[in-house]
Amino acid sequence: MENGFKGIWPAMFTPVNEKGEPAYDELEKLVELLISQDQSGLYILGSTGQGILFTIEQRKKVTEVVMQTVAKRIPVMVQVGALTTADSIQLATHAEKMGVDGISSVGPIYYAASSDMAIAHYRQIAEATVLPFFPYQLGDHSIPGDTITFVKRLMDIPNVTGMKLTTNQLLDISLIHNYAGERLKLFSGSDELFCHASLCGTVGAIGSFYNLWGPQCKYVMEEFLQGNYKLTKKFMLEFQNIIQTIMPNIWTFLRSAMRLKYNIDIGQTKPPLANTHRPWENEDVLKMMDKLERITDTVIQK
Amino acid sequence: MENGFKGIWPAMFTPVNEKGEPAYDELEKLVELLISQDQSGLYILGSTGQGILFTIEQRKKVTEVVMQTVAKRIPVMVQVGALTTADSIQLATHAEKMGVDGISSVGPIYYAASSDMAIAHYRQIAEATVLPFFPYQLGDHSIPGDTITFVKRLMDIPNVTGMKLTTNQLLDISLIHNYAGERLKLFSGSDELFCHASLCGTVGAIGSFYNLWGPQCKYVMEEFLQGNYKLTKKFMLEFQNIIQTIMPNIWTFLRSAMRLKYNIDIGQTKPPLANTHRPWENEDVLKMMDKLERITDTVIQK
Amino acid sequence: MENGFKGIWPAMFTPVNEKGEPAYDELEKLVELLISQDQSGLYILGSTGQGILFTIEQRKKVTEVVMQTVAKRIPVMVQVGALTTADSIQLATHAEKMGVDGISSVGPIYYAASSDMAIAHYRQIAEATVLPFFPYQLGDHSIPGDTITFVKRLMDIPNVTGMKLTTNQLLDISLIHNYAGERLKLFSGSDELFCHASLCGTVGAIGSFYNLWGPQCKYVMEEFLQGNYKLTKKFMLEFQNIIQTIMPNIWTFLRSAMRLKYNIDIGQTKPPLANTHRPWENEDVLKMMDKLERITDTVIQK
Amino acid sequence: MENGFKGIWPAMFTPVNEKGEPAYDELEKLVELLISQDQSGLYILGSTGQGILFTIEQRKKVTEVVMQTVAKRIPVMVQVGALTTADSIQLATHAEKMGVDGISSVGPIYYAASSDMAIAHYRQIAEATVLPFFPYQLGDHSIPGDTITFVKRLMDIPNVTGMKLTTNQLLDISLIHNYAGERLKLFSGSDELFCHASLCGTVGAIGSFYNLWGPQCKYVMEEFLQGNYKLTKKFMLEFQNIIQTIMPNIWTFLRSAMRLKYNIDIGQTKPPLANTHRPWENEDVLKMMDKLERITDTVIQK
Repeated sequence: MENGFKGIWPAMFTPVNEKGEPAYDELEKLVELLISQDQSGLYILGSTGQGILFTIEQRKKVTEVVMQTVAKRIPVMVQVGALTTADSIQLATHAEKMGVDGISSVGPIYYAASSDMAIAHYRQIAEATVLPFFPYQLGDHSIPGDTITFVKRLMDIPNVTGMKLTTNQLLDISLIHNYAGERLKLFSGSDELFCHASLCGTVGAIGSFYNLWGPQCKYVMEEFLQGNYKLTKKFMLEFQNIIQTIMPNIWTFLRSAMRLKYNIDIGQTKPPLANTHRPWENEDVLKMMDKLERITDTVIQK
Repeated sequence: MENGFKGIWPAMFTPVNEKGEPAYDELEKLVELLISQDQSGLYILGSTGQGILFTIEQRKKVTEVVMQTVAKRIPVMVQVGALTTADSIQLATHAEKMGVDGISSVGPIYYAASSDMAIAHYRQIAEATVLPFFPYQLGDHSIPGDTITFVKRLMDIPNVTGMKLTTNQLLDISLIHNYAGERLKLFSGSDELFCHASLCGTVGAIGSFYNLWGPQCKYVMEEFLQGNYKLTKKFMLEFQNIIQTIMPNIWTFLRSAMRLKYNIDIGQTKPPLANTHRPWENEDVLKMMDKLERITDTVIQK
Repeated sequence: MENGFKGIWPAMFTPVNEKGEPAYDELEKLVELLISQDQSGLYILGSTGQGILFTIEQRKKVTEVVMQTVAKRIPVMVQVGALTTADSIQLATHAEKMGVDGISSVGPIYYAASSDMAIAHYRQIAEATVLPFFPYQLGDHSIPGDTITFVKRLMDIPNVTGMKLTTNQLLDISLIHNYAGERLKLFSGSDELFCHASLCGTVGAIGSFYNLWGPQCKYVMEEFLQGNYKLTKKFMLEFQNIIQTIMPNIWTFLRSAMRLKYNIDIGQTKPPLANTHRPWENEDVLKMMDKLERITDTVIQK
Repeated sequence: MENGFKGIWPAMFTPVNEKGEPAYDELEKLVELLISQDQSGLYILGSTGQGILFTIEQRKKVTEVVMQTVAKRIPVMVQVGALTTADSIQLATHAEKMGVDGISSVGPIYYAASSDMAIAHYRQIAEATVLPFFPYQLGDHSIPGDTITFVKRLMDIPNVTGMKLTTNQLLDISLIHNYAGERLKLFSGSDELFCHASLCGTVGAIGSFYNLWGPQCKYVMEEFLQGNYKLTKKFMLEFQNIIQTIMPNIWTFLRSAMRLKYNIDIGQTKPPLANTHRPWENEDVLKMMDKLERITDTVIQK
């Protein structure tokens, strides 16, 4: 399986019903969609999946439903980070039983974390299972203390297999890759820079927009590796432009877009997340989607 | 009651047993201690009280036990902030039923919060009860956007009665006080600066160290208001010195100190919080306590 | 002289004529004014004095004129920081010849400074004379690396006598004072917090507003030390309020206020400094001055 | 000429003699070298060229010597930023007389700059000549206020032709490019990311390392545009690795490397710049150069 940790992985939405619970029917539809698109893997219950906004029981149930639906057709990584290490461990061991392929976890939440505190937290979660473990660093300044010292300590934990680096600081990614080499499989978490990050040593990308534009991004990534500089530049600039434009109301955009394009309703985010995002006109959403997709479509037809 | 929102309020510990659950016996002992010390009020289940690390049911039970023990002898404010607004509302309405005197809440956790998102979150929690509500701003840069614009929007929520400002940026406190005047009762949350903050318009202070040194801090605060500059300076410098010294292992210090001084065991913090703090020698803890307390004792004896 | 390094020192304006050169007549008038007010000392050619915006020759001439006018009636400290260490040394040795009482210097300008780079820069300037030397740290995050390590290295330079700390981070001031004790005479450079800083161990304050309100601030400082909490709080809050209000156009305010109150024209700042500050109505300036000054006047008349 | 603003431009060293003055002989040799390498242009007297550490007269003389030596064989841009706007204007008009192709300037130095202050400064310098003007933004957070508002205001200045963006925040570059399109020619100033930045819309790069490895970087840039992803990745990772390694003593490395490779002595930096950088062993410098250069050499020989 280790070889499967690469490529474009959607940070999968967890569709939500009107009561704020996971909407399991929509969840199954989404899983089927993403598999049908030949995506590289699924990253579930992360920030995009609103993992920490669900109860422990709901998180377990989501994992179960995903694993049953997937039925080994595609690798799955579960984000188990929670407010307490104990909850994270409980989620990790449950996920292992469900047969997931990898575990990931954000660092300590809420309380400011020293390097020591973060490493101890990760170690305890990692050691709870025999599965590959991917610490999830979130934010441009999320690694406490000296980067290399921190990474070295992570690498002392045997089943740390890679990292999810959601940062715009590309030099941090290069720094880690230059130090760790093949020992760590790095995933970029900044959708806007997934191609740029690959020049810094990432093997793949995990992000929200691959729910919506997985095939397009996968295609661009492959073209970039094959030397299609022009397409990559054109696509990435428009992709960045759209993300910049929709950012203030990104969650309502994503909901509309998923509904229009795939007839899947991811529901309303659980407050406080995106509690003031305003609805979009279908027409505007379609126009933006069209503008981006035409870039890859044109090329595909060539 | 509104007049009771002032003075020194311990951000009360929630003692924890070996299973990581609230230790209700120790909790009762701690409540009795703090009442016996004639403290101004109790702030429960905040950061110091590890509120967000307990389950919703545990948080409710802690509130119940505290309210029963207090039996209206001292005002109580409950921190109800949680990962979802729904949980916070549930905790707020429960607290109201238990007869608490005020509600407080941290802003959105984990997801980066815009002003809009934070205000909507606070408003929904505030409007869930008729009680005085105190938004809890945590960190030097915790107010999103322009400070005054944000405060103005908070003041549009009728039962926002004050704020807990855990910041070392004293000018932010002055700025808010100069704008809001008596409309907002400001509590300082930075123990190291509780006297300095009072010059900026705070009416009180909420913090961890008032569990341990409530009477000393209350005495110094009163002396400062009465013009005892010399004592205040001497005490605050030593207080800051101790906090600086113990910071890397603050939780184990506080546990030892509470045990040695009051025979109350607050237990081990729930990981990841302080998961690597190392134990202290009793002798060192006693020496530091003695050094600080002698400053106020000397004066008292004069 | 060492005992003179305390109290309220104006960071003296350098009046500028229409050609952008120092206006020596106004400069003499300003020196006489500040001496007549019984201020504790003069700090010249710092940020407020636009030191680095003048040529080396102009800076020397300003020092000469100030020293001749002062004629030993009041201690003078000269800020000699410049883009090159060589220029700073030249200014320091010249100032020594002119008979100044102390030398101060900002750290390296423009190029990001490591601790090593800053210490080497300070050391070379300090060692250029036998005078007391005061490194000038400017900004909330201006000390590179660990604060105490940096201060320790400064203290290894024999004639480092104190520091000018222009920071709102009061805990940094306490930290340095708790470490250095009487070895370092600390001046606060944040006017808005000059009283609060004294609780953290400062012996004095250096700032722009003491050109305008030196006697008022000196009075408040003394009253604060004597225990007049109420006056201090009232004055500081209004002082902070005014500074906050005028900040976007502070230089034109100061120019108007100095002209209205003392008939001294400090001239227009040298661009780019304050190149877009808009003029004030005399009436508004007078109203603000009146509002602040009435706080101390009332008390004085009591 | 406008079409010449693209490609790899060394931010040219200004060789310094033992007295800290420009070493004009070495300067001429360096200019000849860079022309012989067929570089795209020369950017003189910027941060790498220690522009602000020389006197106005020295800066003029350097410009004269460069222009005479170049004799129109290659475009030249002069950085004229100084502590005062007046000095910058003087340098700009002088440069125009000397026949330079473009003017660049850093923003206000030392005093914290608002958007208004920075725009006024740039406008006055830009309007002093009829030449293309390139504001130089230095640092990840160097654009005051909202990025697009700032860029829009820059574009209102007719001869603003482009920008030098020395930032690792690639999304800022994309944002500006998506807004300004062909109206602004963007140069990347972060050597470590010159290829990545080109995906964000830059037309060229200005940086220190192109003094040393101009031909290599130019080759890689061209290969990248032609689709050689593999070479680009390999080269950039090693390039980043070397920069990371030498950073603490970068100036002594560059001096040694220039001497060993080209027999040009750029001299010692003017203190405080790099005043503590330690010397390198020739062997280590050669080894690092060899390691990087072999990446392009191999390909070239293929």
